[in-house]
Amino acid sequence: MIRVGLLGAGRIGRIHGGNVVANPRTRLVAVADAQAAAAESLAAATDSAVRSIDAILADPNIDAIVICTPTDMHADLIEAGVRAGKAVFCEKPVDLSSDRIRACLKTVDAAGKPLMIGFNRRFDPNFAEVKRRIEAGAVGKVELVTILSRDPSPPPAEYVARSGGLFRDMMIHDLDMARFLLGEDPVEVHAVGSAIVDPAIGKAGDVDTAAVLLKTASGRICQISCSRRATYGYDQRIEVHGSGGMVRAGNVHNTTVEVATAGGVLADPVQNFFLERYADAYRLELAAFVRAIDTGEAPSPSGLDGLKAQILADAATESCFSGQAVKV
Amino acid sequence: MIRVGLLGAGRIGRIHGGNVVANPRTRLVAVADAQAAAAESLAAATDSAVRSIDAILADPNIDAIVICTPTDMHADLIEAGVRAGKAVFCEKPVDLSSDRIRACLKTVDAAGKPLMIGFNRRFDPNFAEVKRRIEAGAVGKVELVTILSRDPSPPPAEYVARSGGLFRDMMIHDLDMARFLLGEDPVEVHAVGSAIVDPAIGKAGDVDTAAVLLKTASGRICQISCSRRATYGYDQRIEVHGSGGMVRAGNVHNTTVEVATAGGVLADPVQNFFLERYADAYRLELAAFVRAIDTGEAPSPSGLDGLKAQILADAATESCFSGQAVKV
Amino acid sequence: MIRVGLLGAGRIGRIHGGNVVANPRTRLVAVADAQAAAAESLAAATDSAVRSIDAILADPNIDAIVICTPTDMHADLIEAGVRAGKAVFCEKPVDLSSDRIRACLKTVDAAGKPLMIGFNRRFDPNFAEVKRRIEAGAVGKVELVTILSRDPSPPPAEYVARSGGLFRDMMIHDLDMARFLLGEDPVEVHAVGSAIVDPAIGKAGDVDTAAVLLKTASGRICQISCSRRATYGYDQRIEVHGSGGMVRAGNVHNTTVEVATAGGVLADPVQNFFLERYADAYRLELAAFVRAIDTGEAPSPSGLDGLKAQILADAATESCFSGQAVKV
Amino acid sequence: MIRVGLLGAGRIGRIHGGNVVANPRTRLVAVADAQAAAAESLAAATDSAVRSIDAILADPNIDAIVICTPTDMHADLIEAGVRAGKAVFCEKPVDLSSDRIRACLKTVDAAGKPLMIGFNRRFDPNFAEVKRRIEAGAVGKVELVTILSRDPSPPPAEYVARSGGLFRDMMIHDLDMARFLLGEDPVEVHAVGSAIVDPAIGKAGDVDTAAVLLKTASGRICQISCSRRATYGYDQRIEVHGSGGMVRAGNVHNTTVEVATAGGVLADPVQNFFLERYADAYRLELAAFVRAIDTGEAPSPSGLDGLKAQILADAATESCFSGQAVKV
Repeated sequence: MIRVGLLGAGRIGRIHGGNVVANPRTRLVAVADAQAAAAESLAAATDSAVRSIDAILADPNIDAIVICTPTDMHADLIEAGVRAGKAVFCEKPVDLSSDRIRACLKTVDAAGKPLMIGFNRRFDPNFAEVKRRIEAGAVGKVELVTILSRDPSPPPAEYVARSGGLFRDMMIHDLDMARFLLGEDPVEVHAVGSAIVDPAIGKAGDVDTAAVLLKTASGRICQISCSRRATYGYDQRIEVHGSGGMVRAGNVHNTTVEVATAGGVLADPVQNFFLERYADAYRLELAAFVRAIDTGEAPSPSGLDGLKAQILADAATESCFSGQAVKV
Repeated sequence: MIRVGLLGAGRIGRIHGGNVVANPRTRLVAVADAQAAAAESLAAATDSAVRSIDAILADPNIDAIVICTPTDMHADLIEAGVRAGKAVFCEKPVDLSSDRIRACLKTVDAAGKPLMIGFNRRFDPNFAEVKRRIEAGAVGKVELVTILSRDPSPPPAEYVARSGGLFRDMMIHDLDMARFLLGEDPVEVHAVGSAIVDPAIGKAGDVDTAAVLLKTASGRICQISCSRRATYGYDQRIEVHGSGGMVRAGNVHNTTVEVATAGGVLADPVQNFFLERYADAYRLELAAFVRAIDTGEAPSPSGLDGLKAQILADAATESCFSGQAVKV
Repeated sequence: MIRVGLLGAGRIGRIHGGNVVANPRTRLVAVADAQAAAAESLAAATDSAVRSIDAILADPNIDAIVICTPTDMHADLIEAGVRAGKAVFCEKPVDLSSDRIRACLKTVDAAGKPLMIGFNRRFDPNFAEVKRRIEAGAVGKVELVTILSRDPSPPPAEYVARSGGLFRDMMIHDLDMARFLLGEDPVEVHAVGSAIVDPAIGKAGDVDTAAVLLKTASGRICQISCSRRATYGYDQRIEVHGSGGMVRAGNVHNTTVEVATAGGVLADPVQNFFLERYADAYRLELAAFVRAIDTGEAPSPSGLDGLKAQILADAATESCFSGQAVKV
Repeated sequence: MIRVGLLGAGRIGRIHGGNVVANPRTRLVAVADAQAAAAESLAAATDSAVRSIDAILADPNIDAIVICTPTDMHADLIEAGVRAGKAVFCEKPVDLSSDRIRACLKTVDAAGKPLMIGFNRRFDPNFAEVKRRIEAGAVGKVELVTILSRDPSPPPAEYVARSGGLFRDMMIHDLDMARFLLGEDPVEVHAVGSAIVDPAIGKAGDVDTAAVLLKTASGRICQISCSRRATYGYDQRIEVHGSGGMVRAGNVHNTTVEVATAGGVLADPVQNFFLERYADAYRLELAAFVRAIDTGEAPSPSGLDGLKAQILADAATESCFSGQAVKV
């Protein structure tokens, strides 16, 4: 049994907490949160204790920590965790500064403890199946990857202001997915973006609609587009075109129900947001973290994956605001 | 060049007339219709002449006739046509009386001239592809056939009154399709029907919603359902389940356009009625008639196919109104 | 907290046991099974005790029982359960004899304790949404219901021999769904069936491919078809046509992945069997049982629903083997 | 009746020739081609005469010309045509040099004769319906356009060498579609491209896989991707995301047939290439040319549309080979 301490009891912390409880290999021992009420509520629901972060880190009976705190605490907590001898799972991003990430990863390497980064979409059963099909040769050599990502509605402008911007906050998931599917690292990044969904986002210095072109050294191409708003729900699609064919994964609808009337044939809406769409992904992500601990194999996605996605997000941000391509 | 006389210039006559003009192997020579205006309009549009039925039958330079008159003239005109030495294409049904059909087919046999019956759906590219897949072994041995057929809106009650009833007028197409796909003749027929779309249809002694079960001697099963009204357009689907899998053909939508909003994902309506949905089928049906004439091979669907569908329609009618199964 | 005793620790017992554990309103107290190993294995997995059926029935601290034993014990255990003052959930069917069901339901009525029958498909999110749409008026007045039901592979002939036959064992789910969607009771039943999948099933006196026509007093029609084998997985579809349109629920695929190659566009297979397809349905079914106990409202589907489905299954069986329609 | 002279009897000339014959408002009078056999074959098939280009231009009884010659003759023939007082339809592109196009359009303006450019995809019923939906407000304000375009197989390298390159030869259609759907002119162009399908294309100085990002002054974004090869056929899809929802048009399959087996559910392949996919578009395009002549309204797409698409193609080419964004 792997004994887990959970740092952060907000929306994503509650998801991971529930999965730790449900996983037969893990036990949720303690929950920490700066907001006492949040910690107490989650502890009560999961039959675990409320403790301080320091107490959790100091407890030799806790084997692993799951970091769900605000982003600016991630790197410090990762370092503290591995130094305390714990396996660490950390929500993305490691940090908004790639220099800080590099320093953090050095500490992780020195400690020799596993670090896994929460790029949950790699574990979505649909996207994971796309990856399996690629690896099985279903589409031959990968040539052109298309990733669409749209949130149902934009976050508040105050969130946007401290988020690092759309490319680092939202598209970073798609940039990781691009690397996952391309099988190579991009070397050239083009980005364009606009604040056309919500002017307040533009005033906060960010964009809410954006698209990126990536090219790898061998010539593989990826295009990503993001919008902070889709009236029809959470739109998450990928498509991979290769020398032998094309594989894609579409959205998940609430049900398979369709209604035909004079207006046409209406399919049920797509699942509304990440809590529904990626419920399985979060569960399977935790299972992969457990498996890495159990087998001693390096977790994936790794801290290096976190760094590389961040570097792409930085390059996209620079390209978007400079109007120029950026070499990576 | 096959010189064609067209008997009947109504809605279906205009379709066949257009296809005769467009087919490079046929020339439309003359058009006959009891309504002079209809004949003149179609003759003008097709650069052909208006003539009487008798004149067309008597013209030795006319090789083939296409019969699109009211049903009660079909059998007489088939007989007159083959006696006059012409290849005959006749819209379904041959007659509402299977005895009259039997007599008519004897005359056809004696004359030795080709007769083809207008079960156009066999030539629909979607349904024809289903048949090809079955013959290619894609689903193994056929076990269970499902046919759905719904018109966009019910005909006037006065039409219904002289139509022979839903089973003979509308479902006869599906009964022929059942034979086409089952590859065997049904021996047991169960039918139920209701007048729930339009009470006037019930008052006219007919049903507007009906379903049929067929069973062949070897145990293959087919279920057919018909409705005289579908608010969403012309619904024409088939599905064949076999020992090796399932093959189906769905509806044809007006376009591939889909719109996603908060209500769901709305596909464009299906094609509204038979003139759109079966435009290709009518064209390919005529081409098959031409091919039969050119090659000397027996046309298909044959007069016997017309008779067998009629026998099934009679049995379904009897079953529906008696509440009992009928052996064929 | 509702304290539950589970009678029967086979395949379906394990599903219900897991759901009792996961439901926050229920606690699994004890498990009984004639096979000690099965009971012990499930008790260990669910942190509950192994007890005899009699001990469970005699325990005043157990509030509800879930009956997952062989069919021939169902009616006796229902009676014993309600007499012991317990709420009872019983897998379908109540009994293979409708007379025995009637007697059992009298005992239930006299005891005044809730009885719910396991027609799980009513709780499938897709089918439940179809029902909600109908009730919301999305398709107007229901006229024609089509239900397709195909298992991935046939059961062993020895199972078939004591199953009561396809109509009582397999199609009974679809017959209940027919009543659920028609909103009326059928009065006329036509059935045909064949043993064309597996000759051993025919030798055991049963059919493996069958279709049924139902008609209600007001003229609504339902057609059901079943096959004991579908090479492509568990095929479970419904479609309801009404005066205002059509609503349908299709199969659930393993993922949304599609691969396009020269052969066409290949969608991922459908979920293989009921354990996958109806996992949510079983969970929601238990939640409905809990809700009935908590609110004191009559559970649905009720014992009467169990009886009425059985009567239709008896009628279908009679029609299939007599070749005649049966009035109900 | 509009009397038409056809210049060029190659593959695309034969399509337009057939449509001129079939359109009730046009008559195909004469065909010219440098290859006598091609001209004669098409003239025979369309019951028209073979003439020289000069003779056609000099004939005062010819009202319109349709230019389907090699690209390097387009601009000269357009000028000669309008000077001869004829309405001109010209296949894309007007010329590979935008300066030459500008000069040509001045001549057209001076002559005051209609010029229409063959961006046929605007007339595809699916894409035209997307445009209609946008104009009807179905998706609110357009924000993000995605265009996918893949040919079934690459052209010979010798064709590529004199084609002007992928962006001017192939993607120009998509660039015109981008303008059509964005409703605004792009001001910033990013492109990447690779020769990964066929090394010979790279040796010829071109790319075979490419993607482009466009941004308009108001911030609307479009991403286009092209591949010279798709094993599964001609892939032509567009999607438009806006403030109120999303509209898309997918591929057209050969039939609606699907086959389900253990491997999944296989849909029929998509239509193989432009002759099938855009047969309706070519027909409707000619009808629009006829309508412009009949009404005196300016044809659309216009010569200016041809110029603007060419400018975008030039910019994309520059961006692709320089690795830098290009302002337009």
